[in-house]
Amino acid sequence: MNTPLIGLDWGSTRLRAYRFDEVGGVADTRALPWGSRQLPQGGFEEAFARAVEGWPHAPVLACGMVGSRGGWREVPYLDTPCRLEALGRSLTAIDAPDGRTVHIVPGLRDPAGPDVMRGEETQVAGVLARMPGLAGNARLLMPGTHSKWVRVRDDAVTGFTTLMTGELFALLRGHSVLGAGLPEGGADDEAFARGVAAAQASGAAGGLSRLFSTRALMLEGALAPASVADFLSGLLIGDELRMALAAGWATPDAPVLVVGEDALCARYRQAAPAFGLSLQSTPGATAASGLWRVAAAAGLLHGLSHA
Amino acid sequence: MNTPLIGLDWGSTRLRAYRFDEVGGVADTRALPWGSRQLPQGGFEEAFARAVEGWPHAPVLACGMVGSRGGWREVPYLDTPCRLEALGRSLTAIDAPDGRTVHIVPGLRDPAGPDVMRGEETQVAGVLARMPGLAGNARLLMPGTHSKWVRVRDDAVTGFTTLMTGELFALLRGHSVLGAGLPEGGADDEAFARGVAAAQASGAAGGLSRLFSTRALMLEGALAPASVADFLSGLLIGDELRMALAAGWATPDAPVLVVGEDALCARYRQAAPAFGLSLQSTPGATAASGLWRVAAAAGLLHGLSHA
Repeated sequence: MNTPLIGLDWGSTRLRAYRFDEVGGVADTRALPWGSRQLPQGGFEEAFARAVEGWPHAPVLACGMVGSRGGWREVPYLDTPCRLEALGRSLTAIDAPDGRTVHIVPGLRDPAGPDVMRGEETQVAGVLARMPGLAGNARLLMPGTHSKWVRVRDDAVTGFTTLMTGELFALLRGHSVLGAGLPEGGADDEAFARGVAAAQASGAAGGLSRLFSTRALMLEGALAPASVADFLSGLLIGDELRMALAAGWATPDAPVLVVGEDALCARYRQAAPAFGLSLQSTPGATAASGLWRVAAAAGLLHGLSHA
Repeated sequence: MNTPLIGLDWGSTRLRAYRFDEVGGVADTRALPWGSRQLPQGGFEEAFARAVEGWPHAPVLACGMVGSRGGWREVPYLDTPCRLEALGRSLTAIDAPDGRTVHIVPGLRDPAGPDVMRGEETQVAGVLARMPGLAGNARLLMPGTHSKWVRVRDDAVTGFTTLMTGELFALLRGHSVLGAGLPEGGADDEAFARGVAAAQASGAAGGLSRLFSTRALMLEGALAPASVADFLSGLLIGDELRMALAAGWATPDAPVLVVGEDALCARYRQAAPAFGLSLQSTPGATAASGLWRVAAAAGLLHGLSHA
């Protein structure tokens, strides 16, 4: 079987490698625990060699924190507004020890923030490759450690912002007076909903103004210790939605596409109605679709036709 | 010299012991690193014995986390609205091994939050003992790990809220992608002012919506790594002021008294004008004054006259 492209979605904590078939389908996937912040002995070169071991010498395209400061090579950002087609024309090439060339997708920078992203630009390209009808005008949410809210118009990213919900949750859950040392709970949807409601009720002050109520509720027995994490999750996700609305990244009348891990997206969809927001799911494996699309725009798919 | 009272201001990370003279002045002070979360071998009893070693067998009054769950003894909260005189009528007595009796001041609970405090209620009593003209109507800010915003009317605490600014700062500075591993800086007032301005410019979305700009500014060289902590401090303190205004704990036309450590209070006063707020300093040693006042209300000062 022919392999026209190998794609790498290389973040700060993990690496996903894709071997593509001739029509842009994923023939093989490898998931490795080596992100830019946690690498094997031998660093990026060794992680790369293991990720593509035994795969044909096809062109390699990589996106994500691999191109950040502290990554394999720091590659420049493109400023917004940025047409998605432009990503493929601004690749940076690295020579790997095995003779392969690894092309790295640039990140995006929104000068208005300023704000930056690496990897999500490729996911946006993948979403729009799968849902081309949206390329004219879309709003996307990519929840996670650093949630991204993205505006697309005329097949260009016109702006974006980062809200640090996932990282704040991890800090508060693991290291704060609110969450440290508490028992693990199951998924407590009711506690999550209470957190969302607290964020919604916080009004203009915002969910962070209600943070300490978590402790007071637990002390007086109104919130079980094992449910604190879910309450906090609801409070922070709710506050993310509030902030996105207040800053104009979402409006109640325009649907937002949610791109990411199923369980996390489900929580955002659960929280959305309290804020009058409509969040819509998107097809998975958007990074792979995006890598294929960027490779096509870059002319890396030698002799293959592409959409 | 007669010692009518020993006071203990006993928080989660430290213990301050005061030996009072006949007129409520502090004749001697001891500062010990033993809070309710970090105690010597022998626990509370041993810490207490060392704190009062060699001092006369006077009545002992303690406030703060010593009365919390996980403290020496969990003592109840009084609900707001709560007259400050009521604190002295709700003490809990513990018998120490040396035969002394330690009386613990109750904390306060605001059922509207819910929210809780332990120790600050005694500081409020101390501030108003020193500035009795304010007891009719005052707003206080006690900045710190868990900042408290307090409303006083007719010598009663009518409500309060906790904003976790100090703890969020410590988490973001020490453990987040924004601050972990960065060099220590000096006090960079200009970076602090930039953080305050970013919080102010965030409008209704709030300062947390601008958190990730810290990283983007640093990556592009617009914020020196050694100045990140000050920028974050300005952003978070600014956002605390924004939240307090949005939730009605402060109004631009009513001055707020700031009670706490000088350097921290100075930063809050530096940030206040951007939000149209007027923050006024208060005399120091408010916990000692409060302990004396509560002891007087409790009738612990046998035979002494008091204001």
